[in-house]
Amino acid sequence: MCNRHHIAAEFRSLQDHICEAIEALDGGQKFQEDKWQRAEGGGGRTRIMSHGALIEKGGVNFSEVYGPVSDLMRKQLNLDGDEFYATGVSIVLHPHNPHVPIIHMNVRYFELNTGVYWFGGGIDLTPHYVVPEYATKFHQGLKGVCDQYNSSFYPKFKQWADDYFFIPHRNETRGIGGIFYDHLKADELISKEQLLDFSLDLGRLFPVVYKKQADAFRNLPFSDEEIAWRNYRRGRYVEFNLVYDRGTTFGLKTNGRTESILMSLPENASWIYNREHNEKEIDTLNQLKKGINWLG
Amino acid sequence: MCNRHHIAAEFRSLQDHICEAIEALDGGQKFQEDKWQRAEGGGGRTRIMSHGALIEKGGVNFSEVYGPVSDLMRKQLNLDGDEFYATGVSIVLHPHNPHVPIIHMNVRYFELNTGVYWFGGGIDLTPHYVVPEYATKFHQGLKGVCDQYNSSFYPKFKQWADDYFFIPHRNETRGIGGIFYDHLKADELISKEQLLDFSLDLGRLFPVVYKKQADAFRNLPFSDEEIAWRNYRRGRYVEFNLVYDRGTTFGLKTNGRTESILMSLPENASWIYNREHNEKEIDTLNQLKKGINWLG
Repeated sequence: MCNRHHIAAEFRSLQDHICEAIEALDGGQKFQEDKWQRAEGGGGRTRIMSHGALIEKGGVNFSEVYGPVSDLMRKQLNLDGDEFYATGVSIVLHPHNPHVPIIHMNVRYFELNTGVYWFGGGIDLTPHYVVPEYATKFHQGLKGVCDQYNSSFYPKFKQWADDYFFIPHRNETRGIGGIFYDHLKADELISKEQLLDFSLDLGRLFPVVYKKQADAFRNLPFSDEEIAWRNYRRGRYVEFNLVYDRGTTFGLKTNGRTESILMSLPENASWIYNREHNEKEIDTLNQLKKGINWLG
Repeated sequence: MCNRHHIAAEFRSLQDHICEAIEALDGGQKFQEDKWQRAEGGGGRTRIMSHGALIEKGGVNFSEVYGPVSDLMRKQLNLDGDEFYATGVSIVLHPHNPHVPIIHMNVRYFELNTGVYWFGGGIDLTPHYVVPEYATKFHQGLKGVCDQYNSSFYPKFKQWADDYFFIPHRNETRGIGGIFYDHLKADELISKEQLLDFSLDLGRLFPVVYKKQADAFRNLPFSDEEIAWRNYRRGRYVEFNLVYDRGTTFGLKTNGRTESILMSLPENASWIYNREHNEKEIDTLNQLKKGINWLG
């Protein structure tokens, strides 16, 4: 039965699997878990890694929350039920080495007491320095999973990510994109079970694609200048998450668990007025655009 | 004539005056000016100080912008005119020394082609470590100016600041507050000229009250632990500005000059999951509450 309990159980296992894989990849540090409960119903397991060998700060969170639909939810999410249920896994990893990208993933399931439900999710990569060959590898990995379910998924969800992971006030994408999707329901082409499998396959892909990125760059030496650029780019990550990210802004406004939501923010970030960028930095900025076909 | 041209000229002079006073207070560095123009009408003078003797990063900005009322403005500001005009001075100063507070000030004037106009503004102080005696001095200074115009101003605007400079998702005020006011119009008790004078008097008070704070604490030694706390508190400043500050969020969404708006962000900020605070830090947190009567 592909009901909420089954989906939440699968997402819990997914969190376990990803944490094990990221601990193995890090090689230095383990996740610390905080279990929390929500007064209105449900709770979660927040798992944070800090000061690992690879990861400076990262979180792999599971949550399962439910309760009455508030006025704010009704308005912002355009819902018509009285009771909601939501479960998902959310990840952000900020590595030490400026040559290793930041990565984010989220898979989620939402349902209302009216019987309406949907899946949503996304994965995107934010290199401090864009290396096209590795942007290609990342997109190929995502396309591989998408194509197993529907050949329209990758092109559609890739464009959706370009539009979603975008910082209008900077006219920049957050990174080299990835995929983003929302309101996915079963139809004549795909069942609810398959949509869950799609979410889980993306989740299982996550440590695999990130290992490719990390292993390629984690042993590169880096300078203070590169650390300064990393921190400056982390400032953009903070801007995106606090100003535009729907999960973050909605969570903060609906009495979500603040420390779990803001685990996505880096240990440090920097803002320099009208910063002058070097050639390599400008090269990256020139690739933070919508509509680039990274498959080559 | 207290018209828009006169008000903008006074605000320009106020910017000059404050920049001179802050340069004298800093003693090490001068402001660098960028003049900018807005495609739809108007422009500004952004003045930034970086790596001064006292101020690590600060901005004293003047702007005068006008043009058609956009749909977003109409909706968010609840306006009914077709053409707007806005001018103001905006300041944020982030000092190096964790014992010296962050300070913010804004005075502004807004009018519509319907003839409706209003003044708005505010000053608030964000100590990394709250020292009640100096919170009192700050509030006494503000009350002194308010009382010259209307004895109801300080109590009303102090409470408004408590409500405005508040971070709901942290259940913390940004600092020890100050005053905040908006939609001030002339009435039987006060003229438009007096409202302008009130704004200008607050502006002239700004370097005076900040000098008191800076001189008291700028020579105190500080440790790495205190720098870490300063950066963590700066993280809260970033959260407030990007999530709640109306000028910031509105500016970013209406194609404002991003670098001028985000001069308010510190050179660096930090986020630590579930940070453990020491006794002195907890003492400050306990004073970041609404409704404290700082006048003693």
